[in-house]
Amino acid sequence: MTELKNDRLLRALLRQPVDVTPVWIMRQAGRYLPEYRAVRDKAGDFMTLCMTPELACEVTLQPLRRFPLDAAILFSDILTIPDAMGLGLYFTEGEGPRFKKPVRTVADVNALSVPDPEVDLGYVMDTVRLARRELAGSVPLIGFAGSPWTLATYMVEGGGGKDFAHVKSMMFDQPLLMHRLLDVLARAVIAYLNAQVAAGAQALMVFDTWGGVLTPRDYREFSLRYMEQIVRGLTREHEGRRVPVILFTKNGGQWLETMADSGADALGIDWTTDIGDARARVGKRAALQGNMDPSMLYASAERIRQEVGTVLASYGQGSGHVFNLGHGIHQHVDPEKVAVVVDAVHELSRPYHQG
Amino acid sequence: MTELKNDRLLRALLRQPVDVTPVWIMRQAGRYLPEYRAVRDKAGDFMTLCMTPELACEVTLQPLRRFPLDAAILFSDILTIPDAMGLGLYFTEGEGPRFKKPVRTVADVNALSVPDPEVDLGYVMDTVRLARRELAGSVPLIGFAGSPWTLATYMVEGGGGKDFAHVKSMMFDQPLLMHRLLDVLARAVIAYLNAQVAAGAQALMVFDTWGGVLTPRDYREFSLRYMEQIVRGLTREHEGRRVPVILFTKNGGQWLETMADSGADALGIDWTTDIGDARARVGKRAALQGNMDPSMLYASAERIRQEVGTVLASYGQGSGHVFNLGHGIHQHVDPEKVAVVVDAVHELSRPYHQG
Repeated sequence: MTELKNDRLLRALLRQPVDVTPVWIMRQAGRYLPEYRAVRDKAGDFMTLCMTPELACEVTLQPLRRFPLDAAILFSDILTIPDAMGLGLYFTEGEGPRFKKPVRTVADVNALSVPDPEVDLGYVMDTVRLARRELAGSVPLIGFAGSPWTLATYMVEGGGGKDFAHVKSMMFDQPLLMHRLLDVLARAVIAYLNAQVAAGAQALMVFDTWGGVLTPRDYREFSLRYMEQIVRGLTREHEGRRVPVILFTKNGGQWLETMADSGADALGIDWTTDIGDARARVGKRAALQGNMDPSMLYASAERIRQEVGTVLASYGQGSGHVFNLGHGIHQHVDPEKVAVVVDAVHELSRPYHQG
Repeated sequence: MTELKNDRLLRALLRQPVDVTPVWIMRQAGRYLPEYRAVRDKAGDFMTLCMTPELACEVTLQPLRRFPLDAAILFSDILTIPDAMGLGLYFTEGEGPRFKKPVRTVADVNALSVPDPEVDLGYVMDTVRLARRELAGSVPLIGFAGSPWTLATYMVEGGGGKDFAHVKSMMFDQPLLMHRLLDVLARAVIAYLNAQVAAGAQALMVFDTWGGVLTPRDYREFSLRYMEQIVRGLTREHEGRRVPVILFTKNGGQWLETMADSGADALGIDWTTDIGDARARVGKRAALQGNMDPSMLYASAERIRQEVGTVLASYGQGSGHVFNLGHGIHQHVDPEKVAVVVDAVHELSRPYHQG
């Protein structure tokens, strides 16, 4: 494998010294980029884009051509696993993801098994291999998966529900069944992420989009517990380097202390928590990734620079911070605003890494 | 005025001794009740229902006929104030509230003035008077308003936005203009709530539905600050009794300590915070209202009873707790589940109020 030229991301995730704070943007390969929309149109639909390695690799690389980002992230979707389990994923205009066969009964759960990543999700592994080769060691490639709880919400609701009626009744009234579902999902995520590492992913992120709709007790029992299982099951060394793992629970700011005990190297945080407070609470147990309000990108360049400075100052001196937004970039943002963020992070963070 | 027969709510909000924990349910007058849907159909549309005091009073009272709730809450909408300011509120099927004239410019903000509650919002005051008379002292009547920040989000977005692009760019790039808008809204809310008290409301609640989409700093500066202004401006004594004020910021669990210093008598909390932890953090500064996961009402009666017990046990011994859901009741819930909650609260809470 080629030598990694820019390893700031990997170093910061492990709280090792860096020259400047690394930065990448959640959904950096996405609809706000006209070149992404062109490839998406060429593919015809979103799933075809995900399932065609050449196109998925192309959109993975697009933001790197525009901005001096410190990482690439695999272009894919968190719902590839349930799709590979045979649930029949499709996307409807304006309504988001849907499954032809939702998981509602004991029989539905019993019918699920762990997909073989190279057989059933080979298109993802091909994308990882292709992107890794094309990156040629310029920056590390991040692989990812959805958390078991988050995948379960989509699978039981049959899509992106609003009040989580089905998945929460299963959790409340049939907790053992829910645990069986979450266990098979955790094992599937472990196999999937380890295959991504074998294929070339150099850091991993678990997106727990819906952990924040739970009570603290249910979060620990039905979401965090399975992310801990995943962390324990992952390949943590590959090609002679540590493979850092990031956990991100949207709206999980109240639970950072317990998340920090999960064994993950880093925690993603959204913008409703002050990153300086988060650092004080988490201490040396984990690095932090985040956390500028994504809506800040609707503001002027001057205001954005100022806010980048505020987030960096709040984190303070030393390594252990990967700059990012607190959630995925919105689709109507002007791409030029991303350039403002990336440049400001690199320029304004230098003093925090001296001495 | 008639003597109040059941004053548990008022006493618990002021942390005075009670026999059992009082309970009411956010959106208890609403779509999950068939008799509500019948009146709504008769009215033709939602705004006509709000603006017809006889019908609004009728739906206010409906849940009290079914369940031994400890409070009634005025049936109305938080957007009556911007409507009275001339923005032209209307509701679209499935898309929620919209304004014909969003607030986007300096001129738009300058054109706003504080509505006279008895003149411009007389239909609300008539509903309060009517409901208070019909309740005949059975339980107290809660009046309410939206928080200035929450009202501003709808007014600037022109409806229920998803990514808050317009309101947040105004906040980030034109903070002084945003402060002017929030100040006129705070003054309007004060006049509106004080008029509700004069008309008969015996407790007040401020709904900060969208404070939780802000950073901690922006929450303090653009939401909490104006709720503090409101608390300072309210009539706190009427008819020889204290009129308690409840502040509720959805997703505000991280900020309870600062909210507790607002001067409000009680804080509403959603289910993402453990109510026992919240009590430890807030101490004697405020009572707490909440906080069962609304989705628990999709579970079986036994599971619901168990969860009511868990929430009561977490709050623990003594007064200062008003039982509620952590958010409004979902529209597809079976009304019988509300009976389960109310009975369980009254029955299971007794031991916590002895000795």
